[in-house]
Amino acid sequence: MIILGLDPSLSCTGWGVIRSEGSRIAHIANGQIKTVAKAPMVERLHQLHEAVSAVITAHAPDRAACEEVFVNKNPQSTLKLAQARGAVLAGCGAKGLIVSEHAARLVKKAVVGTGGADKAQVQAMLKVLLPGADIAGADAADALAVAIADAHLSKQF
Amino acid sequence: MIILGLDPSLSCTGWGVIRSEGSRIAHIANGQIKTVAKAPMVERLHQLHEAVSAVITAHAPDRAACEEVFVNKNPQSTLKLAQARGAVLAGCGAKGLIVSEHAARLVKKAVVGTGGADKAQVQAMLKVLLPGADIAGADAADALAVAIADAHLSKQF
Repeated sequence: MIILGLDPSLSCTGWGVIRSEGSRIAHIANGQIKTVAKAPMVERLHQLHEAVSAVITAHAPDRAACEEVFVNKNPQSTLKLAQARGAVLAGCGAKGLIVSEHAARLVKKAVVGTGGADKAQVQAMLKVLLPGADIAGADAADALAVAIADAHLSKQF
Repeated sequence: MIILGLDPSLSCTGWGVIRSEGSRIAHIANGQIKTVAKAPMVERLHQLHEAVSAVITAHAPDRAACEEVFVNKNPQSTLKLAQARGAVLAGCGAKGLIVSEHAARLVKKAVVGTGGADKAQVQAMLKVLLPGADIAGADAADALAVAIADAHLSKQF
């Protein structure tokens, strides 16, 4: 089973692909899609859509997952994030890929063992769980964490 | 000048195309893109993206416009709306179309003459401004209003 984890945002969308077989997981690839802040919004959204479609074409995941949206107290930030998310998810839909959503706490719990883990703890566990993976940055790390959580969570059903 | 007005939403995205020449405007086409509520979110977003791209291919607008987002008090509603908007705008970006945003008050002012106009007043003025246009529904009407506003507002520059 190939799982794509996604961490959508307008400026930098993280993605991570893992293989899950029984209780074993292995790193396949990860990366970050950055858009130029000065470019028109529609261009940036199109760029996210195309780049995510290209990742899906390249790695042919069986399923995908992202975190449930954190609704920011700043409505404009929520809006930007949700628009980016819409472009990314439409890119998944274009490839016939269904995306599961997991609560941030469940992602941390699946990776670290506790829902209250901080980013440093998550990143430290990623080094243990995906030895040798060269992680592109914090957003790619978050995306890999979601993919790992999806591998764990889906087994519960 | 061909102008595409858009009124994005997840369940029903309105669109309207007008021709603007000097102070004259004329209706070209309008419609509504409906998505199935029971379908997975990614499919619905993909459907919006594809349908908007198809409208742009069919009518080759020179530019496009939509209303500035109304940030709903319900964060989940804002989220759904913004995701739909992201998919629609990515569809515009895919066609190299830049989308202007206009405040709702300015749209009403451009169409009716007052920023406090209600939906019924806007729809009544559309019948006057675009005689003979068969308007697909309330969302298509909103989209045509944005297109008309864009024709007016752009002349100020």
